[in-house]
Amino acid sequence: MALYVHKYGGTSVGTIEKIEGVADKLKKFKDEGHDLVVAVSAMSGETNRLIGLAKDICEHPSPREMDVLVSTGEQVTIALLAMALEKRGIPARSYTGSQVKILTDSAFMKARIQDIDTDNMRKDLDEGRIVIVAGFQGADADGNITTLGRGGSDTTGVALAAALKADECHIYTDVDGVYTTDPRVVEKARRMDKITFEEMLEMASLGSKVLQIRSVEFAGKYNVPLRVLHSSKEGNGTLITTEEDSSMEQPVISGIAFNRDEAKLTVVGVPDIPGVASKILGPVGAANIEVDMIVQNVSADQTTDFTFTVHRNDFAKTQEILEAIAKELGAREVAGTRDITKVSLVGVGMRSHAGVASKMFDVLAKENINIQIISTSEIKISVVIEEKYLELAVRALHTAFDLDAEPTED
Amino acid sequence: MALYVHKYGGTSVGTIEKIEGVADKLKKFKDEGHDLVVAVSAMSGETNRLIGLAKDICEHPSPREMDVLVSTGEQVTIALLAMALEKRGIPARSYTGSQVKILTDSAFMKARIQDIDTDNMRKDLDEGRIVIVAGFQGADADGNITTLGRGGSDTTGVALAAALKADECHIYTDVDGVYTTDPRVVEKARRMDKITFEEMLEMASLGSKVLQIRSVEFAGKYNVPLRVLHSSKEGNGTLITTEEDSSMEQPVISGIAFNRDEAKLTVVGVPDIPGVASKILGPVGAANIEVDMIVQNVSADQTTDFTFTVHRNDFAKTQEILEAIAKELGAREVAGTRDITKVSLVGVGMRSHAGVASKMFDVLAKENINIQIISTSEIKISVVIEEKYLELAVRALHTAFDLDAEPTED
Repeated sequence: MALYVHKYGGTSVGTIEKIEGVADKLKKFKDEGHDLVVAVSAMSGETNRLIGLAKDICEHPSPREMDVLVSTGEQVTIALLAMALEKRGIPARSYTGSQVKILTDSAFMKARIQDIDTDNMRKDLDEGRIVIVAGFQGADADGNITTLGRGGSDTTGVALAAALKADECHIYTDVDGVYTTDPRVVEKARRMDKITFEEMLEMASLGSKVLQIRSVEFAGKYNVPLRVLHSSKEGNGTLITTEEDSSMEQPVISGIAFNRDEAKLTVVGVPDIPGVASKILGPVGAANIEVDMIVQNVSADQTTDFTFTVHRNDFAKTQEILEAIAKELGAREVAGTRDITKVSLVGVGMRSHAGVASKMFDVLAKENINIQIISTSEIKISVVIEEKYLELAVRALHTAFDLDAEPTED
Repeated sequence: MALYVHKYGGTSVGTIEKIEGVADKLKKFKDEGHDLVVAVSAMSGETNRLIGLAKDICEHPSPREMDVLVSTGEQVTIALLAMALEKRGIPARSYTGSQVKILTDSAFMKARIQDIDTDNMRKDLDEGRIVIVAGFQGADADGNITTLGRGGSDTTGVALAAALKADECHIYTDVDGVYTTDPRVVEKARRMDKITFEEMLEMASLGSKVLQIRSVEFAGKYNVPLRVLHSSKEGNGTLITTEEDSSMEQPVISGIAFNRDEAKLTVVGVPDIPGVASKILGPVGAANIEVDMIVQNVSADQTTDFTFTVHRNDFAKTQEILEAIAKELGAREVAGTRDITKVSLVGVGMRSHAGVASKMFDVLAKENINIQIISTSEIKISVVIEEKYLELAVRALHTAFDLDAEPTED
């Protein structure tokens, strides 16, 4: 008999039928004797509808009032889910963030959770109720309604699990777990049974949008075992935990992530003098543009080519900034392309295995794929390649690093 | 410089444009130097949409969860109105019922206000803000969200005015005041400048649905001057107050109300023995059917005809109950008709004027309208007549009691 925190996202509670389905699932867990606390999002589309109403009034509404407005979305869901449970004969009680209370700071629209009062929830659990909590929201010390920012319902789920010392936090979503890579690109992608928080963070930050990064950080910090599951299919999903898998040989690479959202810019022929990097990146940073990978090569003629990547949305703005700097520095030209992809190998096993990088470069070379930029971290190696090679590269690496699913027997 | 509480109903805030219109109106009052606290309803249609969602799950959802659900309707409006004011450069702050806090009992879906904490509102007013409060809702001592029942936003407005000792409570609606009778029936109906709480209660209980009865009772009890105004037209509306008009001769009759929602039933030829009334009305009351007017006539043959009126919706059910009783009592038959109307003269002046009743009967007799039932109270005389005579009766009485509007000069 365990205590589980479940979190259901907007798609999982998007219609009355889906809410009824969630109630059925909860009933199953309850019938098995488990205690349940459930965090839910607004029904899909509802938050956007509410934001639309506000935008009809003004472009930049007061953040305090935005939170009063959008927090109604989850409040609708908690009531409906409680009704659906009661209809099934299961006692349930709903709580808004203010009612719990989930205490946050006063940073409206992006508040951070400071404390959770578990007294009422404990009492309800002791009395056999399922507790339903509005995700994504809380209240500050003065009683103002706050929200955690988009996707914050995952964070609510994890924070509730941490505060209640739950056995596991289940995040129900529209995928049945975390995959070794995107199954839309690699048919043989395999669902992982387990992954560490560190790996999940790297996968998430690279575009594998199964979980909100902040919720994974939060779960790691408080050591809350997180399980990603499909909201309507059966299965064990993927468990995200601190335990590295010691029961079998640790795979060197756990997964392959990629990110199409980057663009590359190069200032060509910059005189190679000290401080040139900060002269180029200073104005870019000042314009609130985040730089990801950076590489600099010195040519034989004492000039250097300075290359870096930014989010694709920032490409045009960055190019404009660089044109001005290039002129100032006496650089030859500014080159750039949107047609790149970053491909990353992720795995905690990498720490103890030399040769991962060289094997990666080897595999890509055999496919005649040119590597434009390389960057590495403790548990990740990333390369930038031409976007057209993405599928080829990921499939080749997936096979080479033994990630392909076993063929199913017919 | 006065303190006004304004209340805007669902139609008055039914669209973004109308919310902007309310903000314009509030700005005008604010610019004149007045302090303002505003109670608002859910945008029209929203409460029904939310109830529809609940009904899709089950026929009788838990009242506690219904209140969590429907209270989101007003919460959306308060945020949007605050945004619309801030856009006009007017500082504003929204409060849910829980945030104020409006303390109620725990009777979900029909809670009664017990206390209102005015500290936060006072502070906001002192700092120059317009305070916006979600109507229709509160919270019980345990922090559960409650609602006051449909139409409860009027009550919120009046309760806020009482707690804040406001100079006037303005109820904005889709009519420009209280009329001597329904202008759709009598073209010459006149808007009253003033009416007493007592008269308003009689008018309201007789189907003049300008204000929710409970809010009028509440205003009378706490002596809060109430003003009914049109939400988009100019004008002074109608002031409802305790002061009887002493500046001029008190009119005998203030208004004429009527109610088409009644039906009449008669148990014919009941043996005239003691206790027969309770034998007939006992089972009707037990079935939760409310009886309005009652009349009993004894015939020459020592039997009696027992007649009463009920709400038209209860007609069939009442008839069924009476058939059984009639058999038991040995009555001759049960007769009944839906085609009746109750017409009532209302006026505090009636107290000091004899002859109102006889004048009323006279007027009706001259039009050959037969009176079926008569009932009187301190400030009201009601008669039941055939429904087809309604317009004729009301117009004749309106003229006879000097209620007709002065002809406007061309």
